[in-house]
Amino acid sequence: MGFFSKDIKTLDDLFVHTLQDIYYAEKQIAKALPKMIDKATDPALKAGFEKHLSETKGHIERVEQVFEMHGVEAKGVDCPAIDGILEEADEVSGDIDDKRVLDAGLIASAQAVEHYEMTRYGTLIAWAKQLGRNDCASVLKQNLDEEKATDKKLTEMAESKVNLQAAE
Amino acid sequence: MGFFSKDIKTLDDLFVHTLQDIYYAEKQIAKALPKMIDKATDPALKAGFEKHLSETKGHIERVEQVFEMHGVEAKGVDCPAIDGILEEADEVSGDIDDKRVLDAGLIASAQAVEHYEMTRYGTLIAWAKQLGRNDCASVLKQNLDEEKATDKKLTEMAESKVNLQAAE
Repeated sequence: MGFFSKDIKTLDDLFVHTLQDIYYAEKQIAKALPKMIDKATDPALKAGFEKHLSETKGHIERVEQVFEMHGVEAKGVDCPAIDGILEEADEVSGDIDDKRVLDAGLIASAQAVEHYEMTRYGTLIAWAKQLGRNDCASVLKQNLDEEKATDKKLTEMAESKVNLQAAE
Repeated sequence: MGFFSKDIKTLDDLFVHTLQDIYYAEKQIAKALPKMIDKATDPALKAGFEKHLSETKGHIERVEQVFEMHGVEAKGVDCPAIDGILEEADEVSGDIDDKRVLDAGLIASAQAVEHYEMTRYGTLIAWAKQLGRNDCASVLKQNLDEEKATDKKLTEMAESKVNLQAAE
């Protein structure tokens, strides 16, 4: 987007801009997850992050599919929100001096990422429907459902095991 | 937190650090909301942001109450996540050249903020319970419930009116 022009004139423009935002975000998340896999100690958490990395690659493909369905080129735009969320995740995990506490911190960071994606996909789905693009909404909903499932699984993992170990 | 020391050694340290994070975040949100109130056109959206600004001031007080209950000084730490989310909100709204589309964009930005707060309060409540601080968890849950209610109201406002106007 330009510094001196207001490039978003319609809801369609805003939809495309936000699609570019989540496209960039998903790619940054795919880059960040291998570091989180390395840092995790609990085997179930490590496996959960590995599964989510594979899902994230699928999310990128679905977003590319929506770009194509909507007739626009697949490209990303800078997304200070996800950059900030991932920067904070990195900073906090670097400050934790205990493997069990680190696992609890990694879950919290991953849930902040999931919540960002959930809000963006929720918005994109509402806008797609408003624009008469139920086909795009339906593809985006598959990503939203997987993000919600991951978030729920992280909560279960934290409350059933990881937080207990961290408090020992 | 220091650059060369790992200052978070226990789940309690991580709880306090995350409390400092949301304390900073709530204060930044209280600073950002007046700008969003100015930019909003739809009277119900403007009134909704005004109500949320007053709630946010109450959230800051509740977080201060939790610091006191937990016997630690109330202070913030830099939170690149909320800084990024608010920076993105500002950038996108500056790029929108239509008042109705801007309202839709402001709702999306506000929901990204709400989701960040929801994930942090959810985490803080789980950790407070794990640490035997149900009293802190109960105060934090009041903030979480209000964030969730605001997020729901924003969705209703978007889907019943603002998105329709933006697509006209």
